[in-house]
Amino acid sequence: MPARIDFQTEPARYRHWKLAFAGDVAELIMDVDENAGLFEGYQLKLNSYDLGVDIELADAVQRLRFEHPEVKVVVLRSGKDRVFCAGANIRMLAGSSHTHKVNFCKFTNETRNGMEDASQGSGQKYLCAIRGTAAGGGYELALATDHILLADDGSSTVALPELPLLAVLPGTGGLTRVTDKRKVRRDFADAFCTTEEGVRGARAVKWRLVDQAVSNSKFEQAVADAARKLAAKSDRPSGAKGIALTPIERRIKADVIAYSSVKVEIERDARRATITILGPSGPPPSSVEAMAEEGAAFWPLRLARELDDAILHLRLNEPEIGVLIFKTQGEPTRVLAFDQFLDANKGHWLAREILHFWKRTLKRVDMTSRSLVALIEPGSCFAGTLAELAFACDRSFMLIGGLPGDNRPPAALVLSALNFGAYPMGNDLSRLATRFLGEPASVDRAKADIGKALAAEDCESLGLVTATLDRIDWADEVRIFLEERSSFSADGLTGMEANLRFAGPETMETKIFGRLTAWQNWIFQRPNAAGAEGALKRYGTGVKANFNPERV
Amino acid sequence: MPARIDFQTEPARYRHWKLAFAGDVAELIMDVDENAGLFEGYQLKLNSYDLGVDIELADAVQRLRFEHPEVKVVVLRSGKDRVFCAGANIRMLAGSSHTHKVNFCKFTNETRNGMEDASQGSGQKYLCAIRGTAAGGGYELALATDHILLADDGSSTVALPELPLLAVLPGTGGLTRVTDKRKVRRDFADAFCTTEEGVRGARAVKWRLVDQAVSNSKFEQAVADAARKLAAKSDRPSGAKGIALTPIERRIKADVIAYSSVKVEIERDARRATITILGPSGPPPSSVEAMAEEGAAFWPLRLARELDDAILHLRLNEPEIGVLIFKTQGEPTRVLAFDQFLDANKGHWLAREILHFWKRTLKRVDMTSRSLVALIEPGSCFAGTLAELAFACDRSFMLIGGLPGDNRPPAALVLSALNFGAYPMGNDLSRLATRFLGEPASVDRAKADIGKALAAEDCESLGLVTATLDRIDWADEVRIFLEERSSFSADGLTGMEANLRFAGPETMETKIFGRLTAWQNWIFQRPNAAGAEGALKRYGTGVKANFNPERV
Repeated sequence: MPARIDFQTEPARYRHWKLAFAGDVAELIMDVDENAGLFEGYQLKLNSYDLGVDIELADAVQRLRFEHPEVKVVVLRSGKDRVFCAGANIRMLAGSSHTHKVNFCKFTNETRNGMEDASQGSGQKYLCAIRGTAAGGGYELALATDHILLADDGSSTVALPELPLLAVLPGTGGLTRVTDKRKVRRDFADAFCTTEEGVRGARAVKWRLVDQAVSNSKFEQAVADAARKLAAKSDRPSGAKGIALTPIERRIKADVIAYSSVKVEIERDARRATITILGPSGPPPSSVEAMAEEGAAFWPLRLARELDDAILHLRLNEPEIGVLIFKTQGEPTRVLAFDQFLDANKGHWLAREILHFWKRTLKRVDMTSRSLVALIEPGSCFAGTLAELAFACDRSFMLIGGLPGDNRPPAALVLSALNFGAYPMGNDLSRLATRFLGEPASVDRAKADIGKALAAEDCESLGLVTATLDRIDWADEVRIFLEERSSFSADGLTGMEANLRFAGPETMETKIFGRLTAWQNWIFQRPNAAGAEGALKRYGTGVKANFNPERV
Repeated sequence: MPARIDFQTEPARYRHWKLAFAGDVAELIMDVDENAGLFEGYQLKLNSYDLGVDIELADAVQRLRFEHPEVKVVVLRSGKDRVFCAGANIRMLAGSSHTHKVNFCKFTNETRNGMEDASQGSGQKYLCAIRGTAAGGGYELALATDHILLADDGSSTVALPELPLLAVLPGTGGLTRVTDKRKVRRDFADAFCTTEEGVRGARAVKWRLVDQAVSNSKFEQAVADAARKLAAKSDRPSGAKGIALTPIERRIKADVIAYSSVKVEIERDARRATITILGPSGPPPSSVEAMAEEGAAFWPLRLARELDDAILHLRLNEPEIGVLIFKTQGEPTRVLAFDQFLDANKGHWLAREILHFWKRTLKRVDMTSRSLVALIEPGSCFAGTLAELAFACDRSFMLIGGLPGDNRPPAALVLSALNFGAYPMGNDLSRLATRFLGEPASVDRAKADIGKALAAEDCESLGLVTATLDRIDWADEVRIFLEERSSFSADGLTGMEANLRFAGPETMETKIFGRLTAWQNWIFQRPNAAGAEGALKRYGTGVKANFNPERV
């Protein structure tokens, strides 16, 4: 296992994917280098994947949105002859720690949700052209697209063989998308998910597993036709020029990661990290053209990329850091000016992309299984988009007045229009609507205060923070909270937070991260799958797994 | 552990609960006999409970509905002086197998859902009067009621101390009801669920954890007032006479359980059981008065009680039986006549109770973590309410024509009005609406065929069965399916079925059984809770649990 898993890459460094462009259609070609696995101990045969493959995929999906506004349809296909994708690599899974397996599944789920978000949010549609076998995670990748074509050649199949083959579940949304997105009838779904060899041609269409099954001779024409139809539904801009997602600025030391606008400080003994976010150093650009000119340096985009990277780094590389403390530094009015700029220009493709990216980054925070706390102190800029971070936290503490020896004005929290719908959570509600599920009038009260500098007393009365504390109590109360949190069981906190963070309606996304993921995590702990005689360990050995037949 | 856990009881045999009646108000008093635990090895101190206590509670809730139509409000309170209820017994949990823990939580959840169902479905409201500590499962019991009063006496508290105390989750719907029913703000919920000592008085009201906090001197008057208010909302009948839920007819042998209308045959080596349901032997009664006269002998009620008992028996006492095969025997038109009778009289309190009971029993089937298959053969009566069993199954096979040497007419499936809304699943959709989520027009097509004897070909074309097979394929195909199913990992099937059975919308109920239960099951497997140095094992020893700090 590498000392540090890095989520930053770029097409020139891809080992597993190729991008090709032709007008408004891009091809995203999976062609996994079997010798370029992220860890030792397995080969990525048959276009199977590990986290390294998925990091490149996530990068490609992101660049397609920002660097290629002209692309209306992305055709996902395989670069191999007889296989589309064999799914997550089994030996990698069998050799991984429980923590890695769970984090791997979470990231791959976020990437597939991101493909659907590109389609729904940015009109960049995905089409999946399957020749050969699309098994397990391979078919789940297809399920994340808008339209699935399957070669009707007697051998191409779609399959979810996880249960019969490995005694685990399809871990990347497969079960949920089969029933809730494609609305496969439950008995067909049951038959499908217990059929190791998968389903071909006409039956795959009848069972709604794919949209079209097309003979080899007509396949490419059908792909082109389907791409044209999807392109017609797209509202991607014509003639816009993409911006380059240049490498992020980052210095990594043992206990500090410093980005241009994000600083992560790790207190290893206390098992916590402080994420400090720096507000903008100046006003927003004068026009959308000037914003596009700034490109990846434009503060909201730069910050989102840095924050996203920091969260992923902490998830995968710092599993023992149980509490993330969010702080901000800067001028609230400046943050607000950027919010107003983005909101005023949300019809512009780049502003739209940035808003969607912030939405996804905030969801990434919601889905991070660490305790999240915001400390709102003098000098902070929890305003608009940055206030959303406080609303994503399990607790938020706000200082009343100042601390001894600190002459800065007391902290204020400021709301912007973007707090009221621009960044829905997985449950499709804004964080404030989720927060005030029991008192919807409180959302309107908060809305009436958009733009006002809300002091601690105001925030307390509006219900925007968990607690306000004066200078006498601040240090002790915060310390006690942090120490207590660190004393609890990591697993118990993970389960509790997964339940408390998502009140209200459920969506396919919350079903995937709540129901499906939780069951998969349970199964990943059970001897039938993960034990020495379990199916994951015995796969490929020629010896059958030994199952405890007891039903739980 | 007793050789067999029996779900049948009656008030005269209760060890832990008392019922008292005064006009339209009943008191349900928890007064646990600490020496009457279901297993050896623990005492049920401080009104803590085990499955035995909950079996009595479920019986009481059921009898209140059937035997006491006059009761509009049930006041739930403690028979102990200084404690309301300390929740599930911790030593019992620590000493239980994973399978027992999970099944215990499932049953207790169903009982609490049943209290809510009594309120919503039958106008029998629940009020909870808390003096002393209501901790963990004790507070979760309160959460299942319509109105919670807490004594404001400086010592009475509500608490969910599971996480800080035991490193597990509140397992009986607590987290879900806190956020989604009582709509407690997420940061308050987070603070509440990490505060071992709980919350008192005014703060409990402010955080929406209880509805009223009332001083000791005014407490009883406040309970009476709240009961009167709830009673005013009830549509329970006045002057109706209850029916006695007499003991069910049941003979238990090693591999057969015979009820009057249900027969369970266990094939232990093959790890499956066949549940055969006998249709009615005659027509329905001539009037609702005659139905009430029949009482517990009335076929739909008698059958539901027997089926419910059979399912619970298999869940708790036969964990290695992985597949349940549903068969029916009888005259479809007779089943239909009972459906029509119930539907025509659904305004009558007893018919309404029976329909709700069937709804709950069918939900119990949905929630049973065994593979479910219906075999629809000549002589069967999968009609109306009994057809619902086929729709609850993961697969259904229907024989085309007859088998050699069998001269009975071919099997037919018949729909009744009750298949279209009377028995919603946990997701609040009918089983047919869930089945046809992707093609709602199919629901209407089926509806147009209500009352028709649908042959195998019709069922195939209407999508009502998984597969139709002729006499040549029948035996082999069914055998292959059953054998294959038995070869899969029990855990994998449990997880898969929990995901595939509940397409579409989520409700508090599906959240509890999907999200919350799955996380709890995961935690029950983790060393931090269940390991030798985990919190469950170390509780009460004076030695602190040893936690792995890694966040998953």
